[in-house]
Amino acid sequence: MNTITAEKRVLTEAQLLTLGSKAFEGLGLTGEDASDVAKVLVTADMFGLSTHGLSRIESYGERLRVGGINARPRITVKQLAPAIVSVDGDNGVGPLVGMRALTAAMGTARETGVGVAFARGSNHFGPVSPYSLMAAEAGFASIIGSNSTTTIAPWGGSDARLGNSPIGFGVPNPGGHPFLLDMAISVAARAKIRNALKRGEQIPDTWATDKAGRTTTDPAAALDGFLLPIGGHKGYGLALLVDLFAGLLSGAAYLTHVKSWVDAPDEPQNLGHFFILIDTRHLGDTAWLAGRMHDFAAILHGSPAADAARPVLVPGEIELNSLARHRRDGLALDPAVLSLLEASAVAA
Amino acid sequence: MNTITAEKRVLTEAQLLTLGSKAFEGLGLTGEDASDVAKVLVTADMFGLSTHGLSRIESYGERLRVGGINARPRITVKQLAPAIVSVDGDNGVGPLVGMRALTAAMGTARETGVGVAFARGSNHFGPVSPYSLMAAEAGFASIIGSNSTTTIAPWGGSDARLGNSPIGFGVPNPGGHPFLLDMAISVAARAKIRNALKRGEQIPDTWATDKAGRTTTDPAAALDGFLLPIGGHKGYGLALLVDLFAGLLSGAAYLTHVKSWVDAPDEPQNLGHFFILIDTRHLGDTAWLAGRMHDFAAILHGSPAADAARPVLVPGEIELNSLARHRRDGLALDPAVLSLLEASAVAA
Repeated sequence: MNTITAEKRVLTEAQLLTLGSKAFEGLGLTGEDASDVAKVLVTADMFGLSTHGLSRIESYGERLRVGGINARPRITVKQLAPAIVSVDGDNGVGPLVGMRALTAAMGTARETGVGVAFARGSNHFGPVSPYSLMAAEAGFASIIGSNSTTTIAPWGGSDARLGNSPIGFGVPNPGGHPFLLDMAISVAARAKIRNALKRGEQIPDTWATDKAGRTTTDPAAALDGFLLPIGGHKGYGLALLVDLFAGLLSGAAYLTHVKSWVDAPDEPQNLGHFFILIDTRHLGDTAWLAGRMHDFAAILHGSPAADAARPVLVPGEIELNSLARHRRDGLALDPAVLSLLEASAVAA
Repeated sequence: MNTITAEKRVLTEAQLLTLGSKAFEGLGLTGEDASDVAKVLVTADMFGLSTHGLSRIESYGERLRVGGINARPRITVKQLAPAIVSVDGDNGVGPLVGMRALTAAMGTARETGVGVAFARGSNHFGPVSPYSLMAAEAGFASIIGSNSTTTIAPWGGSDARLGNSPIGFGVPNPGGHPFLLDMAISVAARAKIRNALKRGEQIPDTWATDKAGRTTTDPAAALDGFLLPIGGHKGYGLALLVDLFAGLLSGAAYLTHVKSWVDAPDEPQNLGHFFILIDTRHLGDTAWLAGRMHDFAAILHGSPAADAARPVLVPGEIELNSLARHRRDGLALDPAVLSLLEASAVAA
């Protein structure tokens, strides 16, 4: 692990976990904490979500180095009620706080059937789907969300006051693939608008507004403006749901109180997350759930495809197939990311 | 109440509740059960949601008369775990089953901080927002959903296999308006497509597909086809979330197992609902929550409107203003609905 190379090298999941863990140890985390962070980010990479995987070493590392994230947080977990826990992340790395909150919610759900964890004092916690997968594999249905830096205008407004916050859910499927949905609230990612600009193409008028809050088909104006939420006022409402649960109710920052990741790298963001977990073992036995989930997926897959080349999928299918493929074949990280990880691991 | 008239008559909320209750008694419900049904439907009317209010006497009444809904259900509530209850609606009127599930979830949440109720054996339960309002007024944040008759194709599919299922949430705001979101998953309601057809106008290609699953701007082809979910695959995933929680996990019917309300009026639909309630009193005191909710709303209202004539709103603002106005001025029901109610009330 102590050579830096720019070659595309294929690593196994175990190698990625070791490298990721060492790299975060190199940034000052304890071995145990670094291992939790690596677990979330490596699962993201295995899912094919490389923008939310180990590549985050760069942005997380930058904030760790300037003190915008606390490498050695004292994370506290407080039981507020038999089914509610509150997690104060003490400005730790997001996936670490996320893992602590997930673990606390699972422990609580084992006791009462439902566990709700509200986390505050956190940072970008990676994608939702690694948490949903861990929950589903342990028998829990989940609804999980996080707030984020403000990039979206309120519906009908003209400045960025809410985040393009992720929300996801999972339902266990004993013996098969769980259902996993992980989505941000915008119609399109900014990257798609940047790509349209590069290609000199217009964008659909449903993707973004200009900086005055008017819908636009001009990608340059859109990049100066705001992403539009899915379904207009519906997506606006969903984004608020996420921020109310993840930010307001958790005791974290919300809306414009969330500090910019880019503009204020040395100030705590105080992001918040929520984890709602339901222990499905109380609802029926394994055979009951397996039978219903198998039938549910079969009904969806059975719909004749509008385009024969693109059969109907269920949520999570792409990610879980990618995970299986990468577990079989290994995964080649971007060489630049690999270099960063190895350089950081050397310091551990 | 025993004269039938076609005039527009203004009634108070109390008068509407009495009339609605008597009308459902006339359809065979007990006085107590009819009163619960009236509470949900009258709140819908007061919110301005007349398509989901007392006008439902027509379709509910039709199914009650042919035995497709059970007028005298034996609804059972079973505690599956300290924080989970299961409600079997015994094919009762939807808002009655909904009210029993809401009450059970609130009771459970008072004990453990969180209450999750899964209901099965139910029918169309009205809009979500009356339940969210009752929960919020009692101090509970909520996420509530129901499945419904299949009208939407899976993303990329070409036949109706999932419902345009409603989901909603609420967050209490002590001393102010709670936040309430109540949304179906489609971009547009079928009524909007019918209106476009009447006016001879095209529709945006994001609203619906033709019957082969191809997007269309022709309202006639769209009415023959399927509504599109908000955000494409994202809305498809959200609709599945609702059906997995409301239908599959509850033990109710789901996807194509839900019988058509129109084609099989005498067969139980076995719809399902879920209610997730969180007692906000465990998270902070009333002043803390009131202060944060006031600030949250002020931040959103403070965004300069893109169109000065249309200031930024928060979810539920239109409905709660409508409720306040109707409580002050009374409400004039559609005369045809009033006639139906009065005719049914006479029989009570």
